[in-house]
Amino acid sequence: MSTIANPADEPMLLRRDEAGVATLTLNRPGQFNSLSSAMLEALIAEVDRIARDESVRVVVLGGAGKAFCAGHDLKEMRGNHTLAFQQGLFRLCGKFMMKLTELPQPVIARVHGIATAAGCQLVSMCDLAVAADAARFAVSGINVGLFCSTPSVGLSRNMGRKQAFEMLVTGDFIDAHEAWRRGLVNRVVPVEALDEEVARLAASIVAKSPVAIHMGKQVFYRQLEMGLDAAYQMAAETMACNMMTEDAAEGIDAFVAKRKPEWKGR
Amino acid sequence: MSTIANPADEPMLLRRDEAGVATLTLNRPGQFNSLSSAMLEALIAEVDRIARDESVRVVVLGGAGKAFCAGHDLKEMRGNHTLAFQQGLFRLCGKFMMKLTELPQPVIARVHGIATAAGCQLVSMCDLAVAADAARFAVSGINVGLFCSTPSVGLSRNMGRKQAFEMLVTGDFIDAHEAWRRGLVNRVVPVEALDEEVARLAASIVAKSPVAIHMGKQVFYRQLEMGLDAAYQMAAETMACNMMTEDAAEGIDAFVAKRKPEWKGR
Amino acid sequence: MSTIANPADEPMLLRRDEAGVATLTLNRPGQFNSLSSAMLEALIAEVDRIARDESVRVVVLGGAGKAFCAGHDLKEMRGNHTLAFQQGLFRLCGKFMMKLTELPQPVIARVHGIATAAGCQLVSMCDLAVAADAARFAVSGINVGLFCSTPSVGLSRNMGRKQAFEMLVTGDFIDAHEAWRRGLVNRVVPVEALDEEVARLAASIVAKSPVAIHMGKQVFYRQLEMGLDAAYQMAAETMACNMMTEDAAEGIDAFVAKRKPEWKGR
Repeated sequence: MSTIANPADEPMLLRRDEAGVATLTLNRPGQFNSLSSAMLEALIAEVDRIARDESVRVVVLGGAGKAFCAGHDLKEMRGNHTLAFQQGLFRLCGKFMMKLTELPQPVIARVHGIATAAGCQLVSMCDLAVAADAARFAVSGINVGLFCSTPSVGLSRNMGRKQAFEMLVTGDFIDAHEAWRRGLVNRVVPVEALDEEVARLAASIVAKSPVAIHMGKQVFYRQLEMGLDAAYQMAAETMACNMMTEDAAEGIDAFVAKRKPEWKGR
Repeated sequence: MSTIANPADEPMLLRRDEAGVATLTLNRPGQFNSLSSAMLEALIAEVDRIARDESVRVVVLGGAGKAFCAGHDLKEMRGNHTLAFQQGLFRLCGKFMMKLTELPQPVIARVHGIATAAGCQLVSMCDLAVAADAARFAVSGINVGLFCSTPSVGLSRNMGRKQAFEMLVTGDFIDAHEAWRRGLVNRVVPVEALDEEVARLAASIVAKSPVAIHMGKQVFYRQLEMGLDAAYQMAAETMACNMMTEDAAEGIDAFVAKRKPEWKGR
Repeated sequence: MSTIANPADEPMLLRRDEAGVATLTLNRPGQFNSLSSAMLEALIAEVDRIARDESVRVVVLGGAGKAFCAGHDLKEMRGNHTLAFQQGLFRLCGKFMMKLTELPQPVIARVHGIATAAGCQLVSMCDLAVAADAARFAVSGINVGLFCSTPSVGLSRNMGRKQAFEMLVTGDFIDAHEAWRRGLVNRVVPVEALDEEVARLAASIVAKSPVAIHMGKQVFYRQLEMGLDAAYQMAAETMACNMMTEDAAEGIDAFVAKRKPEWKGR
């Protein structure tokens, strides 16, 4: 990752595909990869492409330069005075965040540096997150008179409400270990081991049945919003459906025969 | 607990009652206590009996042999190719899991060995869980092409969503200490102290008013699915109702008089 | 804080205002600050006054004497035998607890001693909590035949369900460190540092934009009760609205100019 600003002719969002893993890199290092309208549009377009691309089995989301992502682009926000612009921006942001959850493939946040405001929200909305030990997290909008209301949606679904509320009203940072303790990230490693750890987690998912992962991710987020009884009714249908797939038959047969399964596409 | 396979004439579900505690033991050690249709039917029948049995004040659920429970019976599942069979199996399983929550008496999982897939779900759906330090937990269906959708319902209501999701897509084990840290189990002890710790927790509940425990367990799970205001309205009615019971009068009088209370039945 | 009983002519609820912080002190030390009907009425009246008082930016809630708060007044409850009285009492309590959440200003519990039953509920319902290391927490109603159903509402929204359920059915205490680990309190400090730590947290909030804090607290609790999509839609509107305030413009301008922002009232 380069720490210099991207020239005008370099795209603000990079994508590299390798072995079933699509790595997206926010590439506005000079602006700490802030989520401008243009960046959000680029992310939505890319995520839509990936949703249709069966060769992609896992998405890794990282940032170029020193920061992971410093949230929205304050300059753009301050330069546009209408309510319509602000509504458009935050609806666009919410739309993108929802797409991470709706995407068939799991998304891993690769957090090497600071993740603040909507950048912290981005970590919270990825399915999984691996952080370097030097990464730090804050929902710091309150410092500029802007309570991180949209980040609070993701944050409060990753950690306890008192802990989320404290971050929201103080704007204070927590370090990577504390983020792990609270549940905001899955793993913390030294920065030099970050890519290896992300690759290991991604590879573990690539080795699984794509159709089972797709079905499972979908039902996971839907059941979270249901009462217990409704959740079980829906999940039971999904499992029955999953059992009827070729992959489940192959998986069980391979397990019994102590051989490696061979999955179909999703 | 015996580690040998149960002979054909030994029941697959054992029950022992002592001092208000009904201990149920999954008794298919040769199949790692897997939850076959027959096992689920036996569990439902026994739990229904216990629901009507006022002499039972706490239920302990454990497994014979090396494992706590290794989930569904893959052989049975693979041997029955119809959607109707699969739907029936997972609905039956969901029905049993719901009954643990609906049972008037608290249920303690006694986890001495591995708890995988629906076995891990079983731990998550018990009201309380005590684990031996050597116990391990996974929702490993994804390894055979079968995402643990129904286990995800219980699991994601015991720990953070990122942590649950990681287990679901990797199939990886967590150890007993990590299960405790995340909230999946209440206590972890050396295996040789497991029965004593379970007995201590059970005895603490047996010493309480049965009607208060019954009212409380019921309202606990119902309020969890409500908004804050509705939850308080319902819980306030329950507390008023609880205050009108003879046990509350006796409990407060005994407390004031510094004597032991004597409870009525529920 | 005095440890002697309050004379009849001393109010049961004290209020002191300083630098934007209103400190409320439960002042029935001889009764361990129990939440009698009169105390709940006094709290509701004071919280209503504070809601309209723009000079107050943070509320601190503490207790006089040895205990933080030992819950309801058992003598009053036992002395009033009608269902109507009990319903009235618990509805009043629920009403007060909801008001803490609805209050525009954040509320910090200052927990120096034991917090039991509705006293533990009070901690759970404050937005934030700072505890002395000697503080202890229990929902101990079950010991007198009265399951802490209303406290369970707040408690189960602060910690995992198995951990909350264990406290509810055993009545056992947890210490301050364990309360922190589970999420019931934000910070734990030696008792001699308690006031300083509370003051530091309060000052951090007083330094923020009142209108942003007000908007944010409101949306925080509302979005917690929604599905993800609805939560984002509402939060996006709130952020757009927040961006249109003078404080957000001032906050961003001050940030860019590297000067301290000056906030308007809310």
